[in-house]
Amino acid sequence: MQRYFVETEHWQGQAVTIDGEDVHHISRVMRMEPGSEVVCIHPVEGAALCRIEEIKEKTVDCEVLEWMDEDRELPVEVTIVQSLGKGDKLEQVVQKGTELGASRFIPFAADRSVAKWDLKKVKKKVERLQKIAKEASEQSERTRIPEVSSLYQLQDLLKEESFTWCFFGHAEEARDAVSPSLKSRLTSIEPGDKVLIVFGPEGGFSEKEVEAFKDSGYLPVRLGPRILRMETAPLYFLSSLSYQVEEE
Amino acid sequence: MQRYFVETEHWQGQAVTIDGEDVHHISRVMRMEPGSEVVCIHPVEGAALCRIEEIKEKTVDCEVLEWMDEDRELPVEVTIVQSLGKGDKLEQVVQKGTELGASRFIPFAADRSVAKWDLKKVKKKVERLQKIAKEASEQSERTRIPEVSSLYQLQDLLKEESFTWCFFGHAEEARDAVSPSLKSRLTSIEPGDKVLIVFGPEGGFSEKEVEAFKDSGYLPVRLGPRILRMETAPLYFLSSLSYQVEEE
Repeated sequence: MQRYFVETEHWQGQAVTIDGEDVHHISRVMRMEPGSEVVCIHPVEGAALCRIEEIKEKTVDCEVLEWMDEDRELPVEVTIVQSLGKGDKLEQVVQKGTELGASRFIPFAADRSVAKWDLKKVKKKVERLQKIAKEASEQSERTRIPEVSSLYQLQDLLKEESFTWCFFGHAEEARDAVSPSLKSRLTSIEPGDKVLIVFGPEGGFSEKEVEAFKDSGYLPVRLGPRILRMETAPLYFLSSLSYQVEEE
Repeated sequence: MQRYFVETEHWQGQAVTIDGEDVHHISRVMRMEPGSEVVCIHPVEGAALCRIEEIKEKTVDCEVLEWMDEDRELPVEVTIVQSLGKGDKLEQVVQKGTELGASRFIPFAADRSVAKWDLKKVKKKVERLQKIAKEASEQSERTRIPEVSSLYQLQDLLKEESFTWCFFGHAEEARDAVSPSLKSRLTSIEPGDKVLIVFGPEGGFSEKEVEAFKDSGYLPVRLGPRILRMETAPLYFLSSLSYQVEEE
């Protein structure tokens, strides 16, 4: 069934009002009519099965039929800090990382990031990534859309607080069997924890970055025995975390 | 250090001869000279640190300096049977699945695959996927290149034998909490086992396919609580398997 995220202010008792691009999707793309059923997602309350009452030009009025008992959210809040990379790597990480349960993405201008963002285009690029996160949330039937932050420099990142665990992983860590394994890190994580993890660019982190991470209490993490591409590493991390905390 | 796969017949005692496209890569792209060191991968014996002795027009002669003690291969042989999908999904699965340790890929013409392969182009498409697997093996520092099989129909697949475990996973399985969890499946797998897993296309498997799988003893597998895209599901499976059998 089609799923739409609806902001808190558009819920009043049993009435739900859908607006924006989703109206076009309902009326033109899906060609739905009054009486059709959709799932509306409330940012806090979760998913509700709804019936369409009226399709207007700019809004669709729905009524809640019943609240659904869904639990699809990863019980650990994960913020993926992803260094800028070539091509569509960041888009891939946001799309697939959303499917795998991430809570937030921070694009990071690493010292060795070959790709640079024109500062005038940051807003547009973040909006595009946010849209990818929304679509991936709908597709994977999540009840929460991950937030995409603006472009961070190292000093912005080090100001971030209130995480239970901060990790950094990069290619060199896979070669360095002395670093603690991923499993030893993940088995320490409890439901409700807030985890931040930084992934390096194609060329890895600079020495300055590694020193800054270590000084700020970030823990290095090895990501399995093989060398993973920068866009594959976060997917391995999220999958393993899901396997560790969600699988029984 | 640069890594090159060298076929068995090109090893004689301490002498290794590199040929084909790698010669251009060594002489023109990397601009290496006699005395430079490279890693040559023997299909059975693994990785050897080698010194370039002579760069000729069509071959590069090397000498083995020492055999390297590398263990990057997933201790379980995994065959990923991937239904044809839109765009570059199959390429993504082969590239990232190779990084994550798969042994073999089988492109599968599922009943509901929207994408179809022109039968005249199958050979070329498989060659392209095989090249992606080779490059991803080099990049992830594996000692083995996964094999890419030709396009399979359902009856070809059901003829495949000699697997310890055959699984099938698709979107519906995530919704159906009654299916056994991934963890309950993966904890049964032992090092040395041969595992085959089939992933469905965007629209899922047909009833006929599901029946055929069940009749042939394939076990359904649930892939975590969220609905994963067809190209994300195999990455979740391989990551979780690696985490289960490789992480300590």
